[in-house]
Amino acid sequence: MEKCNVAICGCGTVGGGLLQLIRRNNGIPQNAGVGINITHVVDVRLDELEKDPLMEGIILTSDLNQPINDPEVDIIVELIGGIETAGEVIENALEAGKDVVTANKALLAERADELFQLARQHNVSIGFEASVGGGIPIIAAMRDSFVGETINSIFGIVNGTCNYILTQMTQEGISYEDGIAEAQEKGYAEADPTLDVEGHDSAHKLAILARMAFGINVKAKDIYCEGISDLAPIDIIYADSLGYRLKLLAIGAKKKDGIELQVHPALLDKSHPLSDVNGSVNAVCVHGEAVGEVTLTGLGAGAEPTASAVLSDICRIARKTYQKDFLQLPMFSNVQDIRLLPQGTATMKYYFRLSCLDTAGVLARVAGVLGKHNISIASCIQKGEAHQQHGHVPVVFMTHKVKEKNMLKALKEINELECIRGGESRMLRVTEI
Amino acid sequence: MEKCNVAICGCGTVGGGLLQLIRRNNGIPQNAGVGINITHVVDVRLDELEKDPLMEGIILTSDLNQPINDPEVDIIVELIGGIETAGEVIENALEAGKDVVTANKALLAERADELFQLARQHNVSIGFEASVGGGIPIIAAMRDSFVGETINSIFGIVNGTCNYILTQMTQEGISYEDGIAEAQEKGYAEADPTLDVEGHDSAHKLAILARMAFGINVKAKDIYCEGISDLAPIDIIYADSLGYRLKLLAIGAKKKDGIELQVHPALLDKSHPLSDVNGSVNAVCVHGEAVGEVTLTGLGAGAEPTASAVLSDICRIARKTYQKDFLQLPMFSNVQDIRLLPQGTATMKYYFRLSCLDTAGVLARVAGVLGKHNISIASCIQKGEAHQQHGHVPVVFMTHKVKEKNMLKALKEINELECIRGGESRMLRVTEI
Repeated sequence: MEKCNVAICGCGTVGGGLLQLIRRNNGIPQNAGVGINITHVVDVRLDELEKDPLMEGIILTSDLNQPINDPEVDIIVELIGGIETAGEVIENALEAGKDVVTANKALLAERADELFQLARQHNVSIGFEASVGGGIPIIAAMRDSFVGETINSIFGIVNGTCNYILTQMTQEGISYEDGIAEAQEKGYAEADPTLDVEGHDSAHKLAILARMAFGINVKAKDIYCEGISDLAPIDIIYADSLGYRLKLLAIGAKKKDGIELQVHPALLDKSHPLSDVNGSVNAVCVHGEAVGEVTLTGLGAGAEPTASAVLSDICRIARKTYQKDFLQLPMFSNVQDIRLLPQGTATMKYYFRLSCLDTAGVLARVAGVLGKHNISIASCIQKGEAHQQHGHVPVVFMTHKVKEKNMLKALKEINELECIRGGESRMLRVTEI
Repeated sequence: MEKCNVAICGCGTVGGGLLQLIRRNNGIPQNAGVGINITHVVDVRLDELEKDPLMEGIILTSDLNQPINDPEVDIIVELIGGIETAGEVIENALEAGKDVVTANKALLAERADELFQLARQHNVSIGFEASVGGGIPIIAAMRDSFVGETINSIFGIVNGTCNYILTQMTQEGISYEDGIAEAQEKGYAEADPTLDVEGHDSAHKLAILARMAFGINVKAKDIYCEGISDLAPIDIIYADSLGYRLKLLAIGAKKKDGIELQVHPALLDKSHPLSDVNGSVNAVCVHGEAVGEVTLTGLGAGAEPTASAVLSDICRIARKTYQKDFLQLPMFSNVQDIRLLPQGTATMKYYFRLSCLDTAGVLARVAGVLGKHNISIASCIQKGEAHQQHGHVPVVFMTHKVKEKNMLKALKEINELECIRGGESRMLRVTEI
């Protein structure tokens, strides 16, 4: 049987999971038809690793260039994370003629175009199944399965940390602060959770998905992005009573004039399959013109699911069938000059909550402003009690479809009314895909 | 760009959808990186096809050997269906050194081992993504993505006709007979729906999935199979009140001593994601040791979704990357001598409904028989009214986990009690995966 020599750069959670997975399979993954031989593990924490029985027979080094300079090594697996060092490792590996497998969504969201081009120049490939959705085979599906499709939309829950926190807020009625503390305690959130909770991680993944779905070359920083850190339990409760669940969605949609890409919390109708995706589970819906809607659901993070995705790339590269696909498929090279639509041009329904002075005539004034901006109201509910709010009550509105620009203008005017506590207003988008 | 010559044998619903899909893409599927050239369409209904503008530039023939004997043809797409002719076409194509793409689950469930071997002998491949789950990329996921996994179970809703009928029975409260009539009217069921409603089509698909998941060489006829044609709305209503939905499931599970494969209607807890898969939608859950549970959901049938799956195989064969995977992957050759566990050895919970004489002491007699067979009752409900049933009332029991053998023995004894109308008893399995 063919054997493929693989070096793992960065032996943290995923690297450790990968080693274990390969060892559990005695080096020949059950369905791979090829042998995998781990030659090097590169890490800074050599002391710890040296004691690990998993490292037997493997060259342990802190020198990232050692496996790159070793002509016996076929594949470099980059699991360092971050941008700088990881980017250099991948560049050096590609230039040395080695195939690369990476789980690094932040790097690909920033430099995919350039790195893919470098790979093509050196006739090698980059596998990145693990960069989106952990063990969910969404990259493979986009690459190999939906080939004849015009993709109309791709959207999903792609950050397990946020989904875990939102699920806890919904099911246990706890605050965001308690939710993040619980997520950290259980290992679902990092000590500094900014990248996850502010939506940046979801934007990284959306940039990668959008490239594959629409052929658009976009960087994560150009994607409109709103996180979950200022969500209040009260909005989850109101949304529930209106028939919606609150989820952090990454949304890509093809429109007549270009592509809409956004990450934001969204009210999803409870009948939508994604509304039931709870805890740290991820799910991605793809809507293709021929295939219709296909949804892939599974664990979006964790050592073993992510390692499973890394291993699937390693095995196809080891069988030497991935390289040709990578070099030939247009989604890796012919990214097109497609317009990213500016935020605010989308038309959708909105939920907004106002803190209104509990006196006659307030609703009429709010309705007057909305009418001026051509916003019609689908429903309006009030549940709070005035005395608890020092004379102010929360009132919730659901609009019919309206342009975000108009909604924002109206809300700005409403917030300036003296009968409204403008600082307490909250607007949320209602996603209907 | 490389061009690949493809002949379509059988131009019915899926064949027509495929032609349309390729034409819509101007012969170069968007993400394929390769050109597709339809050279032949073989069908018996030439008169109709000759008038179709889609056929321009394509050789129309009723002679199945014409494309097989044409050295210019690279791929034979078999969309004839059935066993005899389709089997011959595939054999002849493989022997002529041509790759084959097929959607024929009945044929693969019967002859996969032999046809895969023939393909290997001639150094060509068979693509069959469209044979299970329509446009859902479950075959690709099993083949390429879950390579390092030990698959513990694979189960799902793989027949859209049955799922449509069960959904209508559940949501509209209609009978099976009205459900099938409606499904036929809407084109979801054939004039003779036996293959679908008796579960055979699901068994065909399960045989294919089990081969990929467990490496077991099994024919559909050896899989225990129960359909939906004798289901009564009353059991759907009782199941609902107990927190369950009724679904026709195809279930494969790895046990210590072998593999369990079954197709039958099952009560699924409403919290299970498959319980919300409604209408003609299909869904497959795979549980791998590393990746955890991954669920793929989408349209399981229809011209375009199925054509989309066929096209994904065509494109990977045209790029010449599928052949090596097919020839190298152990799931296509090293099927192992794994034991198919006999029906009745599984341990699970059961639902059963009895028609009991409404007098004192009846429940005690039923409980006595259950106790004798070590079956303990989790709950028991009675909702019917005696006078409507001429002195008999329906009583529903839910058991704790028990071996099916014991359950059947107990039910046989219970049905013989003079206070029970044995012919009206109904037993259903409760699936907890």
